[in-house]
Amino acid sequence: MQPAPIERLSAAFARLPGIGPRTAQRLTYHVLTRSEEEARALAHALVEVKERIGECSICFNLAEGELCEVCRDARRDPGLLCVVEGPADVLPIERTHEYRGRYHVLGGALSPVDGVGPRDLRLEELYRRVAAGDPDQPPPVDATPPVREVVVATNPTTAGEATALHISAELRRRSPDVTVTRLASGLPVGADLEHADEVTLGRAFAGRRTI
Amino acid sequence: MQPAPIERLSAAFARLPGIGPRTAQRLTYHVLTRSEEEARALAHALVEVKERIGECSICFNLAEGELCEVCRDARRDPGLLCVVEGPADVLPIERTHEYRGRYHVLGGALSPVDGVGPRDLRLEELYRRVAAGDPDQPPPVDATPPVREVVVATNPTTAGEATALHISAELRRRSPDVTVTRLASGLPVGADLEHADEVTLGRAFAGRRTI
Repeated sequence: MQPAPIERLSAAFARLPGIGPRTAQRLTYHVLTRSEEEARALAHALVEVKERIGECSICFNLAEGELCEVCRDARRDPGLLCVVEGPADVLPIERTHEYRGRYHVLGGALSPVDGVGPRDLRLEELYRRVAAGDPDQPPPVDATPPVREVVVATNPTTAGEATALHISAELRRRSPDVTVTRLASGLPVGADLEHADEVTLGRAFAGRRTI
Repeated sequence: MQPAPIERLSAAFARLPGIGPRTAQRLTYHVLTRSEEEARALAHALVEVKERIGECSICFNLAEGELCEVCRDARRDPGLLCVVEGPADVLPIERTHEYRGRYHVLGGALSPVDGVGPRDLRLEELYRRVAAGDPDQPPPVDATPPVREVVVATNPTTAGEATALHISAELRRRSPDVTVTRLASGLPVGADLEHADEVTLGRAFAGRRTI
């Protein structure tokens, strides 16, 4: 019904998450009515991002070059490690300006149903980073400063919780001097009790604090 | 905060209509986590669509080559012309399978506020197409069959209505034998009276039919 190049662009847009066939069609017509420069800018950015962005060799965050911006920043506390599922989780944490430590990107969460086991995540790399500062372990080659605390910031989902428990059990065994913490679970700021789901409200009760 | 190629791709996505900065960021991370082939396919489709798709030389619909798929189709009734604002309006009409005539794409609607006057639209080209079959006019070089009816399918907005009135007045003067019609305005199928806006409901009354 439509020329093949139009169908191909719509199909390519529709493969992006959250973009249905109607939106894909609308985006295609937008590209058709706008300048060739704009289309080329997006095309170039797509190719460039795949060519120039890889994984940080220390924390597996997205990086242009060998190390990510956080690992390159000498002012970041190397004694604090925040474990996240994916690189997309780093940005919201950075936006809070609350966290000045480093990261460790797992590349997912444990989910036996989806066939994701401990070997599919960067868990051994995490344990090695944490153990690098452990006095019971042989001193590491590059003498990384010791990790004091690991904040497990996997998602508050079944898979994320399972991953957090797994990591905490392993670290307690391998590096007993390191504190393992979990992000607080509770009512989101601005929400009201009336519309909170029972699990969140239950967690808010369990984690209540003296004021 | 993020490597430049990531920022550039997010910015390019955010220039698309209906895509805010958060969605742009999400799309960028999606591209980063998927295969390079998928990113290249989208990049290629973007460049290809701009290189290979132009305007139909008869109706100004989108076309790969000289003529669009509708104008190339000899089975389409040349006596029936549907006038639309943009090429994106052709597809929804085609999807109804109700219309077997041809199109004329204006390239917008009259809107003095936005500086869009009659000369900015393909109006002269429309009048010439319609007059080509007019007995009072000199016979055209390529002897196009006469147009019997022009269906003005500009949007039911202020600009679209103004454009429809302008076209109907001009055609009445230039080609008085041609019927000019307008798409019916009224309640959308599946809608309920309670939530209809007063203008739509007023039109539905004005256009009521015997059953």
